[in-house]
Amino acid sequence: RINPARLWDSLMDMAKVGPGVAGGNNRQTLTDADAEGRALFQRWCEAAGMTMGVDKMGTMFATRPGTDPAALPVYMGSHLDTQPTGGRYDGVLGVLGALEVVRTMNDLGIRTRHPIVVTNWTNEEGARFAPAMLASGVFAGIHTMDYAYGRTDLEGKSFGEELERIGWVGSEEVGARKMHAMFELHIEQGPILEAEGKEIGVVTHGQGLWWLEITLTGKDAHTGSTPMHMRVNAGLGMARITERVHQIAMSHLPDAVGAVGQVKVFPNSRNVIPGKVVFTVDIRSPHQAKLDTMKAEVIRHAHAVAAELGLGCSIEEVGHFDPVAFDPALVKVVRGAAEKLGYSHMNIVSGAGHDACWVNRVAPTVMIMCPCVDGLSHNEAEEISPEWAAAGTDVLLHAVLEVAGV
Amino acid sequence: RINPARLWDSLMDMAKVGPGVAGGNNRQTLTDADAEGRALFQRWCEAAGMTMGVDKMGTMFATRPGTDPAALPVYMGSHLDTQPTGGRYDGVLGVLGALEVVRTMNDLGIRTRHPIVVTNWTNEEGARFAPAMLASGVFAGIHTMDYAYGRTDLEGKSFGEELERIGWVGSEEVGARKMHAMFELHIEQGPILEAEGKEIGVVTHGQGLWWLEITLTGKDAHTGSTPMHMRVNAGLGMARITERVHQIAMSHLPDAVGAVGQVKVFPNSRNVIPGKVVFTVDIRSPHQAKLDTMKAEVIRHAHAVAAELGLGCSIEEVGHFDPVAFDPALVKVVRGAAEKLGYSHMNIVSGAGHDACWVNRVAPTVMIMCPCVDGLSHNEAEEISPEWAAAGTDVLLHAVLEVAGV
Ligand SMILES: NC(=O)NCCC(=O)O
Ligand SMILES: NC(=O)NCCC(=O)O
Repeated sequence: RINPARLWDSLMDMAKVGPGVAGGNNRQTLTDADAEGRALFQRWCEAAGMTMGVDKMGTMFATRPGTDPAALPVYMGSHLDTQPTGGRYDGVLGVLGALEVVRTMNDLGIRTRHPIVVTNWTNEEGARFAPAMLASGVFAGIHTMDYAYGRTDLEGKSFGEELERIGWVGSEEVGARKMHAMFELHIEQGPILEAEGKEIGVVTHGQGLWWLEITLTGKDAHTGSTPMHMRVNAGLGMARITERVHQIAMSHLPDAVGAVGQVKVFPNSRNVIPGKVVFTVDIRSPHQAKLDTMKAEVIRHAHAVAAELGLGCSIEEVGHFDPVAFDPALVKVVRGAAEKLGYSHMNIVSGAGHDACWVNRVAPTVMIMCPCVDGLSHNEAEEISPEWAAAGTDVLLHAVLEVAGV
Repeated sequence: RINPARLWDSLMDMAKVGPGVAGGNNRQTLTDADAEGRALFQRWCEAAGMTMGVDKMGTMFATRPGTDPAALPVYMGSHLDTQPTGGRYDGVLGVLGALEVVRTMNDLGIRTRHPIVVTNWTNEEGARFAPAMLASGVFAGIHTMDYAYGRTDLEGKSFGEELERIGWVGSEEVGARKMHAMFELHIEQGPILEAEGKEIGVVTHGQGLWWLEITLTGKDAHTGSTPMHMRVNAGLGMARITERVHQIAMSHLPDAVGAVGQVKVFPNSRNVIPGKVVFTVDIRSPHQAKLDTMKAEVIRHAHAVAAELGLGCSIEEVGHFDPVAFDPALVKVVRGAAEKLGYSHMNIVSGAGHDACWVNRVAPTVMIMCPCVDGLSHNEAEEISPEWAAAGTDVLLHAVLEVAGV
């Protein structure tokens, strides 16, 4: 079993880096806080006897050698970046849980046949630079490096510039590494495990997603002296599309969600009818056909709303992944580990996207989930219990040992 | 008659200060650009033989002496501040038209019995610091200086700090000046005069307004892993209220308008359900009863939407003025001047708020309007013709001469 107190202490130490405003974290990718978190993680890895490699996307790979030099490594990890008002566990548990697995192996003098690599993937959240899971997406050959480097934040700074600025452009070619398997431990970020009273989620599938960035163009005009019939109100268009996105998700229940998360209004002045809005729609489903239908409906309704108000409408696809099925053999390994350790468990579908979803395209991957309080995530109040963290990490340890060979 | 070419040149020179991004201006109140515009205006006033006074709200008063030292001054002016993406004439025509009137008097060697004062009111737009017409509101005793100094912009900077920073805190007590009359020349900012083919609007009344800042609080949560029924989506609440505001205005036509102009979404991340939104509602009518009813309806609907989505809802009044009737004697003077000069004219109600509306509480005031192309304002593409500007300024000259006595 792993050392629960040590794991918890590391989680709390990392939470001191890039503190939020309400007990959580603002350690957005490629900020100074991210650089500080990376340096701390590197020190911990080196103290645990691992060697750090960094690729050109800034993803960190800490290696513990195996006994068989020819064997491909077994990977485990997640991400240390957070939302602007993020929690202390989303991603972090998967990275520091993996580190704790290595520390436990060190304590117990366990040598594995396959090397073990602990990973911190760059820009999983996609909050600062869309899309999410950017580095793992390049790793899996979904995006080009040029595409990734050119992504910009709300201030117009590019991913490439910011990676350079914080000093984490590594020398490794992205995707050059071959993997025997990859494990990702993560909090559920939803309410199911807690409601069902299960300690472990055996993640069989992940939902698919579309992010659509919609730009509506109307006409800036005075809110007082412009008669109602002369208005071309982009803000009203955004309001109507926001409602339609909600209705579309509701009409496809269960297994469908939809919301508008990010909004920019121009010129954003109290007495100016908005002449332009740019906002993002997030729709998801674990079923490919449903996801495709919802996407088509959002696009159709957006154009219909624009037409009814006389607005220009352009729609850009800024993020996408299809529903994913994790590796069946690894799923069995995770279930077996939970059973052997006596933890209650159930199969679950990931509602969020994760690096393991992209890496799944180029290597066998699987995820382990643990509950979070009230299903709350992407919120500074995100909370888990030390027992849940320990259970998930124990399962990770045993699953990895099984696959890496003792 | 005034000198149309000189007037137009001054308008174009002022438009070079704080240029916008699309041919208009961004000379928001108390910015460096505002300071530059003020300095230019002061030089012009002094070159025209006037003496500048400044009050503690930074409002500028340039005086041309009269022949009767006991006579109260006749005021004319408007504002030089603009929207973030504003036009070149909104407010500016009223200030530089007044300057042109003095220049013409100088050319013709005209002395008036009453002194003449040309005014640039601080923060008319209310774009950076709500409410609009802030300095004239303090002048008229509507707001206290403390209230005004404490108003903050989106970055949290206060009016008082920024007035100090740009060096325009004057020594005069605000509201100490007594006025014989005040004239404000302004572009219509709406489509009526152009549609009716009239050169001059004789402004008899002004619409009333309410600005309500609505804060909705829900719960930040993951857009992917949070089931639809567990969401407390503040962004969806804002969308519904935006639609209701539109419907409320439509249900009170004619003589009613309503829109949402300014929006802040928290945390404003693509994959976070907005946990908080703050946005402003702008509703107007020239009829007091209608304005009151609309305000009550907006408040009722906002609370109803919040209740149906489980959101917290608080509503702050951030701007208000009642419908106003301008001084009947001065209205006649303006109409008489238009007639004498042979300009086509009609009575009109101002759709926007103006400094003359507040000053009306403490002195007889009136406004003169000229058309603008397509009724477009609060837009960088705002346009007028040199002939329209000249006609309005001619009417201003003759109305002021009539009231100030030659
Ligand atoms: N786990 C997580 O929140 N990932 C970010 C990508 C997403 O929005 O699903
Ligand atoms: N004239 C003008 O645009 N004033 C600003 C106040 C308002 O929104 O009516």
